[in-house]
Amino acid sequence: MFRGFSMNRNPHVAVVGATGAVGVEMIKTLEKRSFPVGGFTLLASARSVGKKLRFRGEEIAAKELTRNSFADIDIALFSAGGSISKEFAPLAARAGCVVIDNSSAFRMDDQVPLVIPEINAADLKGHQGIIANPNCTTAVALMALYPLHRAFSVKRIFAASYQAVSGSGARAIAELKRQVEQIVHGQPVTKEVYPHQIAFNVLPQVDSFLQDGYTKEEMKLQNEGRKIMHHPTFRASVTCVRVPVYRAHSVAINAEFDKPVTVDAARAVLRKAPGLQVVDDPGKNEYPQPLHVAEQYDCAVGRIRQDCAFDNGLAFWVSGDQLLKGAALNAVQIAEELMNNSR
Amino acid sequence: MFRGFSMNRNPHVAVVGATGAVGVEMIKTLEKRSFPVGGFTLLASARSVGKKLRFRGEEIAAKELTRNSFADIDIALFSAGGSISKEFAPLAARAGCVVIDNSSAFRMDDQVPLVIPEINAADLKGHQGIIANPNCTTAVALMALYPLHRAFSVKRIFAASYQAVSGSGARAIAELKRQVEQIVHGQPVTKEVYPHQIAFNVLPQVDSFLQDGYTKEEMKLQNEGRKIMHHPTFRASVTCVRVPVYRAHSVAINAEFDKPVTVDAARAVLRKAPGLQVVDDPGKNEYPQPLHVAEQYDCAVGRIRQDCAFDNGLAFWVSGDQLLKGAALNAVQIAEELMNNSR
Repeated sequence: MFRGFSMNRNPHVAVVGATGAVGVEMIKTLEKRSFPVGGFTLLASARSVGKKLRFRGEEIAAKELTRNSFADIDIALFSAGGSISKEFAPLAARAGCVVIDNSSAFRMDDQVPLVIPEINAADLKGHQGIIANPNCTTAVALMALYPLHRAFSVKRIFAASYQAVSGSGARAIAELKRQVEQIVHGQPVTKEVYPHQIAFNVLPQVDSFLQDGYTKEEMKLQNEGRKIMHHPTFRASVTCVRVPVYRAHSVAINAEFDKPVTVDAARAVLRKAPGLQVVDDPGKNEYPQPLHVAEQYDCAVGRIRQDCAFDNGLAFWVSGDQLLKGAALNAVQIAEELMNNSR
Repeated sequence: MFRGFSMNRNPHVAVVGATGAVGVEMIKTLEKRSFPVGGFTLLASARSVGKKLRFRGEEIAAKELTRNSFADIDIALFSAGGSISKEFAPLAARAGCVVIDNSSAFRMDDQVPLVIPEINAADLKGHQGIIANPNCTTAVALMALYPLHRAFSVKRIFAASYQAVSGSGARAIAELKRQVEQIVHGQPVTKEVYPHQIAFNVLPQVDSFLQDGYTKEEMKLQNEGRKIMHHPTFRASVTCVRVPVYRAHSVAINAEFDKPVTVDAARAVLRKAPGLQVVDDPGKNEYPQPLHVAEQYDCAVGRIRQDCAFDNGLAFWVSGDQLLKGAALNAVQIAEELMNNSR
């Protein structure tokens, strides 16, 4: 059942968490992709109320998020953290608004579609007013893994991530910048966001730890991957690592398949995959890099090789802008799908 | 057969490539570990001749490396690149000197022991005058993997590395520093060592590419691991990545074993392993980090967990100072073994 904007006018769109790292990208992406915005509302926490952000040449002030914020809203893009989503997304849905939620709050809820439009747009059908946006590392990895799964049927993967600080939000971007300047100027390094220095260091911790020693972030690729790919036996053992990069995540992946796979066959599949560039010319030192994919919509895959420790597997490397494909872009693409389906 | 210094006086030691990133650490390590140096000679390329380095309070000027440099030398620690080793190590050995070579030139040579003293010191027996020091990432990874192999018999691993710029030498350290300062001061970024910007970026390339798409560096863990562990069927699929860290490499490893393995059993084994610290308390955000192991002799292992994509495997994370255990320290430890065996 479609709710909220199966109507003739352009929808009224709200961005919840408008002043955060992802919120800002949501606003930019709506503008850049000329999303048919009827009305536009920015919602934020009390301390950001009044902050002004530009949208289509206009300065728009953020309003405070309250229980009554959603009466006139058709589509709300949430990126304000799990607890805000848990409290306000159901209220918004009950008010007739469609919520596209970037937090992890509803991703594994059976009633909530978890969608990467290039992969499982069909799952949007029959949503109940809340749609979940996947984890950023999961989205970037699946953009390359899913086309390979379709062609060769993936059994399991081993993966290690190289995650940018912007994945932890605007304060983490500021933290890396501040620490680097402190080091350049010979001052003591201060820490506010991460438990350890991130400048010139790598931290094998993203999100909090589970009982079994994995972090929550590390289990998302298996859990969300199973749901998005409709592949309940998919296995993924992941190590998530924060690196001193401002923007764009990368993932080194070793994947085992059921059907015979070769590098040439994989490359042919990946070249046709939507939202993905094959950047793979070792002779010219060309491979995906966070600096190159930052602020790009498409993810990039490279370093494609026959895996030397699987009898039938591939090793490859994916980079993608996690604020875009891993968050804002994917959310706007979901909104675009909803619009197309409602016409 | 022992050569060169089965004698009553302390050996005359030379460091070849004395002014490089590893050479400097070799000198420091000989001093710090009170290696019984009789005479001391620093050898370098023509352009570094005359450069002075401190050893035990004395300034010693580097001499030019020539074919006749080794007449009076008992032990030569080489770290001047593969082509220098290929040319001069056999000459030195013929002159009666024992060469401990940090380059990749002789590592896979059947006549040359490839040694990590904590693992295969016994392989030093019967050397022919040249002994090879392993690849830095291999050394760091094996410090944790080998004790687990002894206990549980490793079948294969998947690994991804996070390698510091100092692994590419002193010029690469300067390159990262320069690029960061250029960015902080809003200047254009210049590149001399790496084909792409390394500051605030990660590069999935270490060393040059092979025909099969792996880099040379990526195959070293399997090739050298087989030789060092005496395990000819060991398989390792590795992705090597350069990260903007000054010093110390890290490796994320997924390992499959023949014998049943648990986290507790693994931890018990690793706690007893020489040259290794277990740093693994997720509740306190404690795990190995390059910043913490830099300038330390011991490697550190943590993030130990039952692997969720192997039926019988472990995931873990190792960090180690690759200039020390991955190069200078390991070389000096080999020299110490030779001294002990010659007494």
